[in-house]
Amino acid sequence: MRWANVDVPKTLGGDVVPGLRAVRELLVAQARPVRKVLIDRSRRDVEELVDLARDTGVRVELVDEPRIAREARIDTHQGVVAIAAPVRDVPLDDLLSARDAFLVALDGVTDPRNLGAVLRTAEVAGASGAVLARHRGALLGPAAMKAAAGAVEHLPIALVGGVPGAMEQAARAGVWTVGLDAAGTMPVRELPVADAPVMLVLGAEGRGLSRLVRERCDVLASIPVRGHVESLNVSAAAAVACFEIAARRSGQ
Amino acid sequence: MRWANVDVPKTLGGDVVPGLRAVRELLVAQARPVRKVLIDRSRRDVEELVDLARDTGVRVELVDEPRIAREARIDTHQGVVAIAAPVRDVPLDDLLSARDAFLVALDGVTDPRNLGAVLRTAEVAGASGAVLARHRGALLGPAAMKAAAGAVEHLPIALVGGVPGAMEQAARAGVWTVGLDAAGTMPVRELPVADAPVMLVLGAEGRGLSRLVRERCDVLASIPVRGHVESLNVSAAAAVACFEIAARRSGQ
Repeated sequence: MRWANVDVPKTLGGDVVPGLRAVRELLVAQARPVRKVLIDRSRRDVEELVDLARDTGVRVELVDEPRIAREARIDTHQGVVAIAAPVRDVPLDDLLSARDAFLVALDGVTDPRNLGAVLRTAEVAGASGAVLARHRGALLGPAAMKAAAGAVEHLPIALVGGVPGAMEQAARAGVWTVGLDAAGTMPVRELPVADAPVMLVLGAEGRGLSRLVRERCDVLASIPVRGHVESLNVSAAAAVACFEIAARRSGQ
Repeated sequence: MRWANVDVPKTLGGDVVPGLRAVRELLVAQARPVRKVLIDRSRRDVEELVDLARDTGVRVELVDEPRIAREARIDTHQGVVAIAAPVRDVPLDDLLSARDAFLVALDGVTDPRNLGAVLRTAEVAGASGAVLARHRGALLGPAAMKAAAGAVEHLPIALVGGVPGAMEQAARAGVWTVGLDAAGTMPVRELPVADAPVMLVLGAEGRGLSRLVRERCDVLASIPVRGHVESLNVSAAAAVACFEIAARRSGQ
């Protein structure tokens, strides 16, 4: 019986790339084959993008807006969508074996805009890779690709069966796992991660980290809340934690 | 001739409050009158909210999902929407005169989700107020209210004619203005803001700070970019800067 595997995505997705920044980065990075770029013929601010596509040998089609909307499958496409080969995932062990590993793992983040925003933030902060789970949370659909603003062209991503298993693998590889949790006892500002390879684990919107993930973390860190609203959005929390780790690593 | 003023909003908006967190915070804070709370009768996870509304004397209507969607005007309403009096703005001078003023001003942020996310982050970080411009950027529509997750019930907001004028007023009141800009020469990590009252100024998605705003800043700060993607989303940048300021103020 193999029916249970029918719905399991075999790739990260990412073949539909909407938005100016995401398409520009796709063309510049040349990390994967691009089939074509569709551009709304009524747009005035896309000349640079047309030139870039032609310079990189990618077919450009000037079309009407409804066609863009149909291919992009989101409203916020900015008049541009590219169709490309899916993003290739990398083996988790490759990410774990890097001497300066700085990984961001997502445990059940379901909002694609949050997923994309976290990947963008992680890449800008200098993370060396991301870890996404096959069975939980969103993969690289159009909304995630738009929000990622091209980060997936540069940030290697491992697609794993589950985050708890990936954490076990991290422990074996000597990579510290730091979970971000409202109940965490260590303020992110005091994380002892200046040198060590580290995997930051972020939980779902609302529910936070799953029990199993929480138990497996070497450290549970928290961001001090000084207002009345109880918590940060997961992408804001990711930004604070990623840049805290980045600053500590560069000796600040 | 007064026609040029026809479209200028007189209030911040915020009368439509979609989403579980935003409605809960609205009811708990009791900062403004609430007309009613509409709840999708098929939801199973809203009992606590029904009790809370009834405890605070607010009328609850159990209705069908399409009615919620119509009133909420966004898809991501989570089956809940409240209708309340608009959020009242406060005079800028009241915000500027606070001894520990920690203000966040938005210069042309147009994406309502970004606006709401910045307000949520600012409130959680312990900011004492926000500054929004009447003529530029988004005000408190349903998408912003959802993303703000109730922050507007606690964070006082000044509605100003323009951010440059507000910065002039800040300078007269002895409040330092710190602009966040990719070209900023001072890393946020080194901001000399441990004690001084400060107004953090954030620019629009894509374009960043306007020329006039950039020129008026006492300090232009930047967040070090360590990856390939050129910049953070404005709400991620706000998170990094707000928590940097918050940490420095608490002596970390």
